[in-house]
Amino acid sequence: MNDLLAALSSIVGEANVLRSTEQCAPYLNDWRGRYHGRCLAVVKPASTAQVAAVVKACAAASVPIVPQGGNTGHCGGATPDASGAEVVVALGRMNHIREVDVGNSTITVEAGCTLAAVQDAAEAAGRLFPLSLAAEGSCQIGGNLSTNAGGVHVLRYGTARELVLGLEVVLADGEVWSSLRGLRKDNTGYDLKQLFLGAEGTLGLITAAVLKLFPAPRSRSLAWVALPDPVAAVQLLGDIRAAAGERLSAFELISRQTLELVLAHCEGARDPLDQPSPWYALIELADSAEGAELGPIFENVLGAAIEMELASDAVIALSASQIEALWALRENAAEAQKREGVSIKHDISVPVSRIPDFLERAGEALAAAFPGIRIIAFGHVGDGNLHYNCFGPVEAPSLIEQSEKVNRIVYDIVAALDGSISAEHGIGQLKRDELVRYKSPLEIELMRRIKKAFDPAGLMNPGKLL
Amino acid sequence: MNDLLAALSSIVGEANVLRSTEQCAPYLNDWRGRYHGRCLAVVKPASTAQVAAVVKACAAASVPIVPQGGNTGHCGGATPDASGAEVVVALGRMNHIREVDVGNSTITVEAGCTLAAVQDAAEAAGRLFPLSLAAEGSCQIGGNLSTNAGGVHVLRYGTARELVLGLEVVLADGEVWSSLRGLRKDNTGYDLKQLFLGAEGTLGLITAAVLKLFPAPRSRSLAWVALPDPVAAVQLLGDIRAAAGERLSAFELISRQTLELVLAHCEGARDPLDQPSPWYALIELADSAEGAELGPIFENVLGAAIEMELASDAVIALSASQIEALWALRENAAEAQKREGVSIKHDISVPVSRIPDFLERAGEALAAAFPGIRIIAFGHVGDGNLHYNCFGPVEAPSLIEQSEKVNRIVYDIVAALDGSISAEHGIGQLKRDELVRYKSPLEIELMRRIKKAFDPAGLMNPGKLL
Repeated sequence: MNDLLAALSSIVGEANVLRSTEQCAPYLNDWRGRYHGRCLAVVKPASTAQVAAVVKACAAASVPIVPQGGNTGHCGGATPDASGAEVVVALGRMNHIREVDVGNSTITVEAGCTLAAVQDAAEAAGRLFPLSLAAEGSCQIGGNLSTNAGGVHVLRYGTARELVLGLEVVLADGEVWSSLRGLRKDNTGYDLKQLFLGAEGTLGLITAAVLKLFPAPRSRSLAWVALPDPVAAVQLLGDIRAAAGERLSAFELISRQTLELVLAHCEGARDPLDQPSPWYALIELADSAEGAELGPIFENVLGAAIEMELASDAVIALSASQIEALWALRENAAEAQKREGVSIKHDISVPVSRIPDFLERAGEALAAAFPGIRIIAFGHVGDGNLHYNCFGPVEAPSLIEQSEKVNRIVYDIVAALDGSISAEHGIGQLKRDELVRYKSPLEIELMRRIKKAFDPAGLMNPGKLL
Repeated sequence: MNDLLAALSSIVGEANVLRSTEQCAPYLNDWRGRYHGRCLAVVKPASTAQVAAVVKACAAASVPIVPQGGNTGHCGGATPDASGAEVVVALGRMNHIREVDVGNSTITVEAGCTLAAVQDAAEAAGRLFPLSLAAEGSCQIGGNLSTNAGGVHVLRYGTARELVLGLEVVLADGEVWSSLRGLRKDNTGYDLKQLFLGAEGTLGLITAAVLKLFPAPRSRSLAWVALPDPVAAVQLLGDIRAAAGERLSAFELISRQTLELVLAHCEGARDPLDQPSPWYALIELADSAEGAELGPIFENVLGAAIEMELASDAVIALSASQIEALWALRENAAEAQKREGVSIKHDISVPVSRIPDFLERAGEALAAAFPGIRIIAFGHVGDGNLHYNCFGPVEAPSLIEQSEKVNRIVYDIVAALDGSISAEHGIGQLKRDELVRYKSPLEIELMRRIKKAFDPAGLMNPGKLL
């Protein structure tokens, strides 16, 4: 091991090989505080060549590697195991924007750029990089791509995967494979980059990417709509999409219970409507044209919805501060829950048309099994993706010892509705066993074949995903 | 072999195992008439179970399989070899629309549905399936997905790959792998479907797919713009995209020489402008809102472009028949060339910003090597994709014996500009050797590992792509 440590120091410089408990600590615990690991060292390379040399040295010593970006993942995918035998490769020093090609509407970035830095570079070029999520100030684009991150604008721009035109990847043996080209069409064989996107670092280590940019939105409008039930939400989604087309850039569902938690825990939050309603939709329209007439679209669609009793009331934000206040009600949902206590969290997806069915079935089954259970449901209904979190009754709020039973109820219903047990957070360590339970043995077998083809020695982020 | 033929007959019925030269002929020659094969039999299964049984029987007999859809490919990817030892599996009987889920904006289709049938089913549900290309009346969706087809609306909706949410695939051993779920987000492991998309049937046989639908466009406007050079085209593309956002649904570039061939060979075609211009752009805007104001966007952007001498003249189509006539000038480009004679065809892509550079470099190098060469350049400039075809001088129009030399000039420049030698037509038999020349040995090696992992016996469409 001393040979390996000396080799790593000679590659990245002694200052960039961390070994002390104190120095390593931030890299050994996941963001939610659920996983705690140990490591041989944390190595901080500054270039693709250094990453390649680090991976080669580790491969030669049969030492496993755990790639880590901003360490903001929800499933423990970037936390090393307890053996202390793994090397954490932290990408934060690879934080250069390599190129912005305005004529091609692309940006080439290194893996360690924060998502916010990528957004800012796009904005400075008069363009939009649309990936947007709560951790954007600290998460890194390499991690976003390795987990195929989602966020609030997926229904318009797609997940991280759909925003990638090319990748640079250090393979398990330290070879560098690059498809860093800004091509919107390229039908020359298997699309290898797709394998590394969402692979959580188990097939190779993403070091750079060419990403798509879009016209910057210059008009925006937001509505907060009270709904009788989730059936109305799905119907309204169809209506607003037909009227607004691609101007529809977010459609979030929020339950009354979620709003109440936010009102209780977050200073300055206030109910936008006079009367309570069991469900709400937060709908955003955006247009790249200056002064686009978005208000009339809302007025037509929401007016008709209220007439047909699909909606009971609505407000449309007229100023930037109103827009911000409405978005905050949605964005503070996670924080409000944290303040309430520990919940059992699920990040599920089903076909959009089955969201009402899921909510009804899961709600009934959970209420029967756990009287008084409080369900905090909200999420990206435009993508069929719900965050569906469970607290016990107010007098006994923690259900965490019942996780296995709660998960089984929720995930079995998801499976029956052809849904997914991880819509946007990935598998990591958290859902590895669930994966085997809900995927077909054939699919697991095909995944193992790919793992073996790309990482025969099993040294890339072992114990994650598979 | 008689055992296999008997087994195949018992699976699909005797009438669906074709053996006579006459019956097999339509399946043994490619659409362009460049490739001619032989086969043991043409088998026409009607269900996924039948496809699986056919593949299993062939695998047991070590007989290779050539999947075939509408047989409209440009690279010989669906034509069997000359050995007469292969079985062609023709998917045309698997032509059911399995489901339209309007609430989820998805459609589930079998591989043998024609592209037009998929478009029609979407339209009947008030939605758009945006994949659109010249062969849509006869090509089949399974072939479109296996070649990751492109077409004229890629800049707005993406290639075939981006339109797929789920696949059903018969693997090389006859097992059926299915991800036929209409999920817009699913981060549970490697995204296996990506491997089969664009794999030209070499990893498995696609039998069904869940596809994304979009709001139907209800307003449309089209402009024909005269441009001094391709630099102006790229600039104008940026300007119109900034002003129109996702309303921009096509941006095609057409050279004067291309237009002249269409005017010469296609009845009723007429030059939309009084003065000739070296280049033209055909620009389409579409909006899902009824009566959307698209005209003013064109007037603003094109007015400014003419003032800045980015454009010299323009017409905006005002009626459906004008729109049709303008589109016909672009759509008849292939037919007009066919009537002119045999050209050397290229389907290349480069970053959009490098299109002017490509056209200048390739034009100069070809003119120097082949005095009098006529270059017919047109294509999807919004995707960086050009069809770049070469005729000799009028007095000696065929250059076909010079293919090797012409290809080398064109493809070397494409490679120097980080482009692709096959933007949307795939590899098939036609470009297999070129692939090895222009891909890195590492990438070819990774592709071979995947092939081996999915088709260890090499029985799925052998000799294609790899």
